[in-house]
Amino acid sequence: MNTIEFSKGHGTENDFIILPDPHGQLDLTPAQVTALCDRRAGLGADGILHVVFADGLWFMDYRNADGSIAEMCGNGVRVFAHYLRSRGLVDTDAFTVNTRAGQRPVVVHDCDDFSATVTVEMGPAEVTGVSTAQMGGLDFAGLGVDLGNPHLAAVIPGLSPQQLSELVFDSPTYDAEFFPEGVNLEVVTELVDDRVSMRVFERGVGETRSCGTGIIAAARAALADAGKTDGQLTVEVPGGQVLAEITGETSRLTGPSRIIASGQIVLAD
Amino acid sequence: MNTIEFSKGHGTENDFIILPDPHGQLDLTPAQVTALCDRRAGLGADGILHVVFADGLWFMDYRNADGSIAEMCGNGVRVFAHYLRSRGLVDTDAFTVNTRAGQRPVVVHDCDDFSATVTVEMGPAEVTGVSTAQMGGLDFAGLGVDLGNPHLAAVIPGLSPQQLSELVFDSPTYDAEFFPEGVNLEVVTELVDDRVSMRVFERGVGETRSCGTGIIAAARAALADAGKTDGQLTVEVPGGQVLAEITGETSRLTGPSRIIASGQIVLAD
Repeated sequence: MNTIEFSKGHGTENDFIILPDPHGQLDLTPAQVTALCDRRAGLGADGILHVVFADGLWFMDYRNADGSIAEMCGNGVRVFAHYLRSRGLVDTDAFTVNTRAGQRPVVVHDCDDFSATVTVEMGPAEVTGVSTAQMGGLDFAGLGVDLGNPHLAAVIPGLSPQQLSELVFDSPTYDAEFFPEGVNLEVVTELVDDRVSMRVFERGVGETRSCGTGIIAAARAALADAGKTDGQLTVEVPGGQVLAEITGETSRLTGPSRIIASGQIVLAD
Repeated sequence: MNTIEFSKGHGTENDFIILPDPHGQLDLTPAQVTALCDRRAGLGADGILHVVFADGLWFMDYRNADGSIAEMCGNGVRVFAHYLRSRGLVDTDAFTVNTRAGQRPVVVHDCDDFSATVTVEMGPAEVTGVSTAQMGGLDFAGLGVDLGNPHLAAVIPGLSPQQLSELVFDSPTYDAEFFPEGVNLEVVTELVDDRVSMRVFERGVGETRSCGTGIIAAARAALADAGKTDGQLTVEVPGGQVLAEITGETSRLTGPSRIIASGQIVLAD
């Protein structure tokens, strides 16, 4: 049996197996990824952060638990940056992480081996229009927001965090002409005291405890609903809370990272 | 942050965090156990195998994922024995493991650091009578079997493994006079070529991929259904397959153990 070095961490309970491989010697197959991410026969995670150094930058080779490749993961990149900084793979707090969706500037604050707060630049949150979705017998009208992936962020007037927590979250139906590649649906409370609560249904996954791009989409919609185009707000998700910032040109997400275990793990043949 | 040594393993996909603590210095709290077993914020597992040496024996201090204490776990004890043998904590293949349910003789075969086959003596499988349960709109008549915990093992004539896999498994209703402490329900195919398939609904947990005592109860019922009081048979569960043996005085379970990762893990304060 072949064993390799690993760490396990999470960002607002979106969890990852971190596989350091600076020289890119590990040719991870989809079968190996699904075996690692299996929550009973393997170690279990939502995805893999394969840590590779290439072209002068640390590259986040992100893999979904089903073995497929993802461009970017807003929670994963926090954990990725925390790992690099706490393990001494970078020696400054502000640096750039390379992803399939492009370069992401990050700043790591309050960092030790186990815990950090990380700010990630998420790029522009482009509003694509208004649309609706149906879920659990209810209609949700919201803002289409593009962050490299498609979102429908529905701010519901008068919805309390308690009512939000009781909504039925299952596969939404949506306008397939407006969202030809499917959609991630965020249901969001109104902006009160610079704070909203949200839940997210991720396409191809189901409800998750947190979604980085979904948080930015929700922030964009909550600000728009309050008549603002930019600002800062706290977003409560089932897995914790983060700070979202929307500016004219870009968006930023600041939130926690935890690394809870490290060691050696069996890699399937 | 305090970190401690751990390994992660599973027996037919019933998975465990192994915490070696020979001198019993670790006073694990329920909150620490639930944090470790949390499948997103922690490492994730069905339970903890706390490895303590006391009174001349290795004691399996088993904790459920919810922080409660369990007497015994038939899949856990295989992984526990594999861990002891592969890490050199015992130097013979046949030895005795102490549990809250008493001493369990084990034999470890084909052992390396990652993989082993382990036989565990599970004690007598005592038939307590016949009873019925209702689940998913169907009636299940079966044999009450006591293995320290209560089981209702229902052998269904003509049920194919495919049909078994399609049954709705949710909370059963049962005769609360016959099973005053609740019941674990096994649905089992008829004995054909010394082989059965089963699924199990564990009280307080839900459907699981494997249950050691449930496998013995199912074997006892399948043999009885075929007019036998003892014998050997292969039992297919969703998490894999094991060999069950029923004799006049005791029962034995032989099955796989896997240890897939080892390292250091954060222990909450």
